[in-house]
Amino acid sequence: MSRKISIALDGMGGDNAPAMVVDGARIAHERYPETSFILFGDQARLKPLLDRAGKLRSVTEIHHTEEVVLNEDKPSFALRKRRNSSMWLAIDAVAQHRADCVVSAGNTGALMAVAKFILRMLPGIDRPAIASFLPTIRGETVMLDLGANIEVDANNLVEFAVMGEVFARTVLGLPNPKVGLLNVGAEELKGHEALRDAHATLKRDNLPVNYHGFIEGNDIGEGTVDVVVTDGFTGNIALKTIEGTAKLYTGFVRDAFRTSSFAKMGYLLASGAWQKLRKRVDPRRYNGGVFLGLNGICVKSHGGTDALGFAHALGVAVDMARHNFNDKVVEDFKRLREALSFAQESGPVAAASVATP
Amino acid sequence: MSRKISIALDGMGGDNAPAMVVDGARIAHERYPETSFILFGDQARLKPLLDRAGKLRSVTEIHHTEEVVLNEDKPSFALRKRRNSSMWLAIDAVAQHRADCVVSAGNTGALMAVAKFILRMLPGIDRPAIASFLPTIRGETVMLDLGANIEVDANNLVEFAVMGEVFARTVLGLPNPKVGLLNVGAEELKGHEALRDAHATLKRDNLPVNYHGFIEGNDIGEGTVDVVVTDGFTGNIALKTIEGTAKLYTGFVRDAFRTSSFAKMGYLLASGAWQKLRKRVDPRRYNGGVFLGLNGICVKSHGGTDALGFAHALGVAVDMARHNFNDKVVEDFKRLREALSFAQESGPVAAASVATP
Repeated sequence: MSRKISIALDGMGGDNAPAMVVDGARIAHERYPETSFILFGDQARLKPLLDRAGKLRSVTEIHHTEEVVLNEDKPSFALRKRRNSSMWLAIDAVAQHRADCVVSAGNTGALMAVAKFILRMLPGIDRPAIASFLPTIRGETVMLDLGANIEVDANNLVEFAVMGEVFARTVLGLPNPKVGLLNVGAEELKGHEALRDAHATLKRDNLPVNYHGFIEGNDIGEGTVDVVVTDGFTGNIALKTIEGTAKLYTGFVRDAFRTSSFAKMGYLLASGAWQKLRKRVDPRRYNGGVFLGLNGICVKSHGGTDALGFAHALGVAVDMARHNFNDKVVEDFKRLREALSFAQESGPVAAASVATP
Repeated sequence: MSRKISIALDGMGGDNAPAMVVDGARIAHERYPETSFILFGDQARLKPLLDRAGKLRSVTEIHHTEEVVLNEDKPSFALRKRRNSSMWLAIDAVAQHRADCVVSAGNTGALMAVAKFILRMLPGIDRPAIASFLPTIRGETVMLDLGANIEVDANNLVEFAVMGEVFARTVLGLPNPKVGLLNVGAEELKGHEALRDAHATLKRDNLPVNYHGFIEGNDIGEGTVDVVVTDGFTGNIALKTIEGTAKLYTGFVRDAFRTSSFAKMGYLLASGAWQKLRKRVDPRRYNGGVFLGLNGICVKSHGGTDALGFAHALGVAVDMARHNFNDKVVEDFKRLREALSFAQESGPVAAASVATP
């Protein structure tokens, strides 16, 4: 049997919490029997849900707290005033080594701020990044940063590349994932200075990254690379643009099949195909932004998700814990720093500050 | 009958030139009988095509030149060494008032550089922007900048908002288009400094812009606003991400309908619906980036387009010429400068340099 994995749950985070959290944990426990849970939140609401959750009950311990982080709470407010919240205490369980990972569907900004405050960064990493995977023609691609850093420098992008590579290797199970930098053209002269400097660094040999080069927006869906690296501003806009375009197309397809009775009949005959299609692009499968770079595994589930989506986010956390994700990141950063400080004689701008611990 | 419109054509620009250019002009002339053309390029190749193009022949004059701008030419090279190219001469025809507008499917970077050099900017406008329209759930949306400016300041964004508004009003025919700034959240504190400053300026009264506020990536496809304003880096990535996602979905739908004979039958029955859908998202309908802010109408058609796509780009040029697009932009910039210099006492950073001619 696999090693036991203990998951700290923010029982009160998310639009459909706490019922969705408990039910998501029930589904995840069926899939991953090695899991156990510490559930933070209002005992009066959590207990009855847990009592109806079958086997989950015997592997879950409730930790009562009445305080919650609200969706409208500013990160700074959560940091100062929500120290007894279900979110705060769940993250703290990871810091105290009582849990292997934490999953929350609560306020993203607050979760990032509190997780960064409590867990701190992995040694040698400057900034955390939010990563997620997306469907592509060839399978799945990891994209980061999706919003943790509005502005980045070349070092941050290089760090994101390394963390994204480890994520694709461990969670997606790809042996040698290809990494690309998102830009407005494939030529060396294109884009911001930070992008060009990161490109120059990543092109070097001996780095723990299989670097493909610059990619463009259309390459995301085409699956040109396994890891798409970008700043949090561009990544957030690209991610939401994908969501909006997917919604648009779904609407167009639905409209098209409403136009005639022939079309409606065709729609009915093809209903199996539709279900298959829906499953393939089901946003619940792509639920969960992972916070990379923190000294502790922290997964953010979409605020509006249901139990199935939450179970997927739990699955990502389990994969990361199982594969000792953070240990692998630390190893790769050691290799990165060695490679870059070795190359430092040739005077690379980007290498200098990455090499500084 | 409508006022005559003379269009200068880069006969040699685009992967399928010159045949696609001549055939596109033929289609456009059928749609817009008020058009006539000056066709720049290799007479030996253009003449036989034109001879087979029916009525187009009588309204088209060929201007022979053997020089062409190649796809691999850098903008600086085109500026120095392609002064007799079909692209250069076509743009020059607009500067010389021999044509009302110019359309090219050639090298985008070269076209922008040469058009900016020859036509210059409209008075009071700092930077040109590339605009295009996109399909949305509600209809169509204009987005700019799509790649002319990798980095922008608040004034540039305000200028793009005004130009985009005029474009939506004249070419899309919307009486009072809503304008949004693309950001990573709707809150005032989000995003780059340039975005926040532009937001503060656009929120003022008396500006010739119906400003909606910040929007996010998913709002593009949802049609939340009629004009999406962003920098050229983000806009280019969003545009190409939309293209990639559309391609991904089309592939998914096709795959889904191949899975069973029921699905295949359904597909056949629904073929009318499919055609409708395809027409709705036909990239040829959204072909053509328009260069706004130049003292002359210049439309860029997609390099890989066919005659139908090129005809659509010609249609956009005709619409802009018909509605005196540039005169309206100049008028609105006058109103913008008045509104901003009036507000200058309160010390807005953004107003100062917009107000300087």
